[in-house]
Amino acid sequence: MLVHLGWHPLSRAPPFEQGATCSGWKRSVQGSCPMAPQYAPSLRSRLAPLLLFLQIGFVVIFAFCIEIESNIKADGTTFSSFYPEFQDVNAMVILGFGFLCTFLVRYGYSATGFNLLVAVMAIQWAIILRGMESWYYRGKIRVDLRSLVVAEMCTASALISIGAVLGKTNPVHLVLIGLLEVSGFVLNEWLLQVLLKVPTENSIMLLHVFGAFFGLTLTWILFREGSLQPFEKEKFDRQTGLFSMLGSLFLWMFWPSFNSVLVDNDFPWRKLGAVCSTYLALAVSAVTASAMSMLSSPRGKLNPIRMQSCILAGGVAVGVSMSAVRQPWEAMTIGFTAAVVSTAGSQCLKTHMLLAFECHDTCAVLSTHGLPGLLGWLAHLLLQIKACDDHTTAIRFAVFHICTLLLTIAVSLSMAVLTGFLLKWNLWRPPQDKKCFDDQAFWEPRLSLPSTPA
Amino acid sequence: MLVHLGWHPLSRAPPFEQGATCSGWKRSVQGSCPMAPQYAPSLRSRLAPLLLFLQIGFVVIFAFCIEIESNIKADGTTFSSFYPEFQDVNAMVILGFGFLCTFLVRYGYSATGFNLLVAVMAIQWAIILRGMESWYYRGKIRVDLRSLVVAEMCTASALISIGAVLGKTNPVHLVLIGLLEVSGFVLNEWLLQVLLKVPTENSIMLLHVFGAFFGLTLTWILFREGSLQPFEKEKFDRQTGLFSMLGSLFLWMFWPSFNSVLVDNDFPWRKLGAVCSTYLALAVSAVTASAMSMLSSPRGKLNPIRMQSCILAGGVAVGVSMSAVRQPWEAMTIGFTAAVVSTAGSQCLKTHMLLAFECHDTCAVLSTHGLPGLLGWLAHLLLQIKACDDHTTAIRFAVFHICTLLLTIAVSLSMAVLTGFLLKWNLWRPPQDKKCFDDQAFWEPRLSLPSTPA
Amino acid sequence: MLVHLGWHPLSRAPPFEQGATCSGWKRSVQGSCPMAPQYAPSLRSRLAPLLLFLQIGFVVIFAFCIEIESNIKADGTTFSSFYPEFQDVNAMVILGFGFLCTFLVRYGYSATGFNLLVAVMAIQWAIILRGMESWYYRGKIRVDLRSLVVAEMCTASALISIGAVLGKTNPVHLVLIGLLEVSGFVLNEWLLQVLLKVPTENSIMLLHVFGAFFGLTLTWILFREGSLQPFEKEKFDRQTGLFSMLGSLFLWMFWPSFNSVLVDNDFPWRKLGAVCSTYLALAVSAVTASAMSMLSSPRGKLNPIRMQSCILAGGVAVGVSMSAVRQPWEAMTIGFTAAVVSTAGSQCLKTHMLLAFECHDTCAVLSTHGLPGLLGWLAHLLLQIKACDDHTTAIRFAVFHICTLLLTIAVSLSMAVLTGFLLKWNLWRPPQDKKCFDDQAFWEPRLSLPSTPA
Repeated sequence: MLVHLGWHPLSRAPPFEQGATCSGWKRSVQGSCPMAPQYAPSLRSRLAPLLLFLQIGFVVIFAFCIEIESNIKADGTTFSSFYPEFQDVNAMVILGFGFLCTFLVRYGYSATGFNLLVAVMAIQWAIILRGMESWYYRGKIRVDLRSLVVAEMCTASALISIGAVLGKTNPVHLVLIGLLEVSGFVLNEWLLQVLLKVPTENSIMLLHVFGAFFGLTLTWILFREGSLQPFEKEKFDRQTGLFSMLGSLFLWMFWPSFNSVLVDNDFPWRKLGAVCSTYLALAVSAVTASAMSMLSSPRGKLNPIRMQSCILAGGVAVGVSMSAVRQPWEAMTIGFTAAVVSTAGSQCLKTHMLLAFECHDTCAVLSTHGLPGLLGWLAHLLLQIKACDDHTTAIRFAVFHICTLLLTIAVSLSMAVLTGFLLKWNLWRPPQDKKCFDDQAFWEPRLSLPSTPA
Repeated sequence: MLVHLGWHPLSRAPPFEQGATCSGWKRSVQGSCPMAPQYAPSLRSRLAPLLLFLQIGFVVIFAFCIEIESNIKADGTTFSSFYPEFQDVNAMVILGFGFLCTFLVRYGYSATGFNLLVAVMAIQWAIILRGMESWYYRGKIRVDLRSLVVAEMCTASALISIGAVLGKTNPVHLVLIGLLEVSGFVLNEWLLQVLLKVPTENSIMLLHVFGAFFGLTLTWILFREGSLQPFEKEKFDRQTGLFSMLGSLFLWMFWPSFNSVLVDNDFPWRKLGAVCSTYLALAVSAVTASAMSMLSSPRGKLNPIRMQSCILAGGVAVGVSMSAVRQPWEAMTIGFTAAVVSTAGSQCLKTHMLLAFECHDTCAVLSTHGLPGLLGWLAHLLLQIKACDDHTTAIRFAVFHICTLLLTIAVSLSMAVLTGFLLKWNLWRPPQDKKCFDDQAFWEPRLSLPSTPA
Repeated sequence: MLVHLGWHPLSRAPPFEQGATCSGWKRSVQGSCPMAPQYAPSLRSRLAPLLLFLQIGFVVIFAFCIEIESNIKADGTTFSSFYPEFQDVNAMVILGFGFLCTFLVRYGYSATGFNLLVAVMAIQWAIILRGMESWYYRGKIRVDLRSLVVAEMCTASALISIGAVLGKTNPVHLVLIGLLEVSGFVLNEWLLQVLLKVPTENSIMLLHVFGAFFGLTLTWILFREGSLQPFEKEKFDRQTGLFSMLGSLFLWMFWPSFNSVLVDNDFPWRKLGAVCSTYLALAVSAVTASAMSMLSSPRGKLNPIRMQSCILAGGVAVGVSMSAVRQPWEAMTIGFTAAVVSTAGSQCLKTHMLLAFECHDTCAVLSTHGLPGLLGWLAHLLLQIKACDDHTTAIRFAVFHICTLLLTIAVSLSMAVLTGFLLKWNLWRPPQDKKCFDDQAFWEPRLSLPSTPA
């Protein structure tokens, strides 16, 4: 029996603060009764002020610093050719990432709702941060569709990290992670640009590696003993698996837009190349992920959740190596390898990461984004070296490319450590083990609608 | 045994029509058995002839009056730049509004199916009505993508009204509401244009106010005693909440298209401004709605259904005030206020509306569309006055703006009263209280597929 | 009791091959216990090698033959005007068709997952096959967005066929059907072009007829005695019906893109005509399908699954007759007739097809795609004859048009017979009757996630 709600009394984080509103909760009496509902600490005094404070702050900053770009070509082709891709990326960030994590059987509202919450906070913050330089020199930040898209892609990096700690954190944690991770990512982009002159399109695509390492470090720091057994509610069922499939297919369908949106419209053949390469890589990785999933299963069956994340590996890997891919077969080979690596990773590494490194990775971000991202980085290196004429250029590129990766990982790890220690602060009221992966901690139960008591 | 299938053989209209309350309905034999299913009146002799008659009528009208616009710029940029936004609006009307109302636990088929049915009837009717003037002068109505989009937006107004009476009406009612409301809305647009010279983009955006007041008046006229207690099936569960979240996110994602689609393509910077403003307002209102929802809940928890409708408030308010919004922070402030007003409204007003005014508002259209719409109208007034140089212009604008609103509300209320009294006619067989919010009244039960008996 | 797993020992296909790996399965002991899980034959040794072999083969072919189109107009308008429609078709093929079939209560993962698997295999194969001529003359196949879209439309034909055999086949069957059907469809397109000079836009649109007849022939050849009673799991419930509604609405919304995507961008008025005609035809067919569904039901209720497929009939019929439709009312009349025919077909024919012709048609592809497709063909004939000035041209067109249809049906039936006999080979391990329409045969059961045993 889980005395003390599965929380060791000597552990640093108490089950909840004394001030928490758990009105009906009689600890002494009901502790012995496994059926009694045990209330999660209320977040009203934490989340609501934090959100309002940040949001009002953002509005004030926008009021003083930000205006809408007015210098647009009069024929509007830029707008109308950019807008559909912007909406595709928007659908991926809001709907795709949100529904991808709905597989958790009692965590659907949280997966989609908190995803939206973190996304909109992080997008506003990313717009501000990425405009700081322009603000410094010109006194104003100008937003257009491109800055919104870049902000959404920075946010995607945060949403990936969140996949690693999902279910074991509360929305206050998630919002803080979102803001700090985006800060780190924008810092990394700036460092890459200043120190190594990496163009934005390439540095943004490292979001998968950045996000995955950030998330893993975070979940390592926030490790809790309770993770060693499977959580009671960390499972999926038929219905939630289908919702998750919906999110996964949204990501799969629109990934070509994600990889091509930042390619300059003035080079339509490069844009076409990005779209076709990503599309073919995704196709290959869907086939390969199915085959590998079946091969690696002891009963020769497909695992729906594993397959849903591994079909995306091709898109991740090709995105990272995009600027070096010239031929469709290169993209397809990258997609093939990415799916193999991703399936193998999710099959073997997840348990090892948990037992050996105390990393409990809810949505398998290591195998979905981390490994394919690294593979894409490697493919970029190999393809670029192959294309070089002489050794000097090749070696110079290799050094540059390795530095890019090392810098990214270094920034990612440092920001994650910083964030992790901030989140360990008990002020934020972490959920108890028993309330992990449960909407009930944050959402009103199913209600008869009109009788909502005020 | 089910004698007479719960239908008195001599009754033409429902087995009871004494005030449409079945609380005291004792049918001599079955009244004593609470388990016996009591069949809803069949709509076969009402809905099918109505639909076929109207549809054939529409085809005939189209045959004589309507042709496809042939005068298109040869380079096709208009088409290709308009089409993606058209599809976004289409997705909002068909999928977004349809799935937004699936939260009702046993009313999912009806919410999506009847939404589609009303939408397609109302779109055809709106195309005809809006072309009447052109038909009068030129003998032909020409349709292009813009007329389809405008027709869809008129329809959106009807779909909003339907949200107020959903679950307590049958599809015959809904189709009639759709057609009459669209007639009223097109009449209102015409009056605004003729009397006050309001441009189409602005008058169309009043659809939220028009629809909300229409729906509220309607639900007030159709009030039934049974609404005073919560209906047995008026509740949501985990799965239906997620479907509803899907619809809500579709609306949220594509709202920038909804607000910008009517802005002329020749002014791409105004279009960009509309997209960015709406996007930022939606982001702010998502954050604010979460914070306010948590603050106002007694247990400090989020209410999924309330949050789903309140995150949209920013889009509504900015849409109504679109032509006066110049700076991002103005849109964000409007979004912030709209979310506060909307959450407060859905928290406090819903029960009061029911008890004090006998308005049972199923989908809370007052707080989702009505209040944010009024707020947007007010913001438009204030921003425009702020931009005026002298008092005379400001006062003139204020009078004009107030007249616009009053005329809209007057048309909305009159049409709603007319519609309401038409719908009270028992010919249309209103559902009994016990069958409210239940798909079973209109849809075949779950079937073993191939054995469908002919 | 269904001894021998409901499989007659004399029937042509044994429940599983002797070599099948159901190691722990003791037929003699457990056969008498109805509660014992009876394992479906594992597909590990069939599906995984097949997929890997084909996929590696495709990559090799792509490496030698395929490159990305580099000859693009520098202003990129072609790309940016084509891309949104490409994504709409992509969403229809991957998400629409996938979720349309999720209504089966225990077959949701298979419906969406195998749909994706077949689609990506068939798309790659279609790109290769359709480029063979170009490869023969120029040594290289060039892909651009148009070739991807055409490949997706060829694939749609295969996905339609799969609707007829869904639930009674395993993924190995489905992949083989996908590849062979696409081969047949490309062959048909080539024959039509060479023999009758039918332009690609018209021959591609015959995909509905081709796919439906292919699927029906296939399900006739693969008929199993067990189909005569309803399968235990061939039914729908409230949740799966909503998922299916989602897929259906995706198809409905984006069908205008499906019909207009192949119309040349240089004729924007034809493109506008295609979009408006399809849109209006879909609207009419949604209304008509509802009315007819209610009229034909004995209890005057709507059948959700039937309605979901019949609202699409207008899109199918108008697509096939697209190049002859000039006026909106023509499209609307076609939509009206198509919905009547489709509803009547799904009401009456399904049982007859099963009992009289031994055709068990899971997703009613005959009435969803076959009959509306034939109707569209007929409408095309009538409209074209009406537009002809003299008898000679009319008769010549009629002969040509009839030959087109006959050739298509002939190729479809022959390929289906070929495919059918290949699939009857027991090497592919067909599922037992008891495992039909059950995800459990191919997918891991609901799992506690982190404890996935390696």
